Amino acid sequence: MELLKEKILKDGMVREGNILKVDNFLNHQIDIEFMNEIGKELYRIFGDKNITKILTIEASGIAIAAIAAQYFKVPVLFAKKAKSKNLDSDLYTSVVKSYTYGREYTITVAKKFLGSDERVLIIDDFLANGAALRGLIDVTKQSGSTVEGLGIVIEKGFQGGGDRLRAEGYNLHSLAIVDSMDNCEIVFRD
Amino acid sequence: MELLKEKILKDGMVREGNILKVDNFLNHQIDIEFMNEIGKELYRIFGDKNITKILTIEASGIAIAAIAAQYFKVPVLFAKKAKSKNLDSDLYTSVVKSYTYGREYTITVAKKFLGSDERVLIIDDFLANGAALRGLIDVTKQSGSTVEGLGIVIEKGFQGGGDRLRAEGYNLHSLAIVDSMDNCEIVFRD
Repeated sequence: MELLKEKILKDGMVREGNILKVDNFLNHQIDIEFMNEIGKELYRIFGDKNITKILTIEASGIAIAAIAAQYFKVPVLFAKKAKSKNLDSDLYTSVVKSYTYGREYTITVAKKFLGSDERVLIIDDFLANGAALRGLIDVTKQSGSTVEGLGIVIEKGFQGGGDRLRAEGYNLHSLAIVDSMDNCEIVFRD
Repeated sequence: MELLKEKILKDGMVREGNILKVDNFLNHQIDIEFMNEIGKELYRIFGDKNITKILTIEASGIAIAAIAAQYFKVPVLFAKKAKSKNLDSDLYTSVVKSYTYGREYTITVAKKFLGSDERVLIIDDFLANGAALRGLIDVTKQSGSTVEGLGIVIEKGFQGGGDRLRAEGYNLHSLAIVDSMDNCEIVFRD
């Protein structure tokens, strides 16, 4: 998505540790007009998949999923990061190993909102190692529903998570793939 | 907002401890079409305030703020709940005492996204004691910007946080105010 690449080059900042800061339009401050372009593009890509539910994870995925859902005309369900170890039996749960924060956390989704016959589009802001995305895939599979697509705004291609998911056959589309950020220079995959 | 009251009566569930569960349309699964009605209503109420930024807090406020922002045509900024004690000096911070979870947490907002001349509309899903809302008011005041309005979807009137804020002169509007939930019967304020 050319508009996104331009926005990343204009407003994104590379920080030590391969961190790409896009918090002025994507995951702290949100440019809602731009988010609508993201939503339209996700619909252009996945609009023919008869999606019945969009699944994302708190917090940064929520705005993207909510805006995109207006085009798909389906509900959004956002997985929560569990606050306690005592989890209800009415939840699907999955353990996510965060490489960014060097810790594990559990994500939860209420079973009653993810039936066995949903056609799920999973949306998130970033894909690096793919740990969070695999947690969302895991809860979808537990429910018996199908993952019809994975829609990501920015993929850090050099961390390999996206290519591993593609190799496994997932219908993954990232609107921009950053293949390197060496010397603070952002290089996109074609 | 009649549509919201009907929705709460139809889909909401009262649980022990004065908990009102509306997670099938507001804060876990999100009914996006309904969220647009919420957004329109907030714009009807606050549309003449020349709002320049909508401020909310992760996670449940984000979808409401993002959808509403389409009507105001302004960016959304969502306060984060701090993960560490080592906070940058480039953040506004405020300590929030959560009565629901019986603990304190710190909310943060990057200074660069909240200038001194913003006209801020604060949006959140719930208002009970008002602790989170006061945190958002606090960071807005630290920035030097003005709080032009507080827009809440559901206020638990019997917990008093809303009335205290009104008494202090804040332009607070809750789209539904629940005045009691005794014996699992939801009674709205007129």
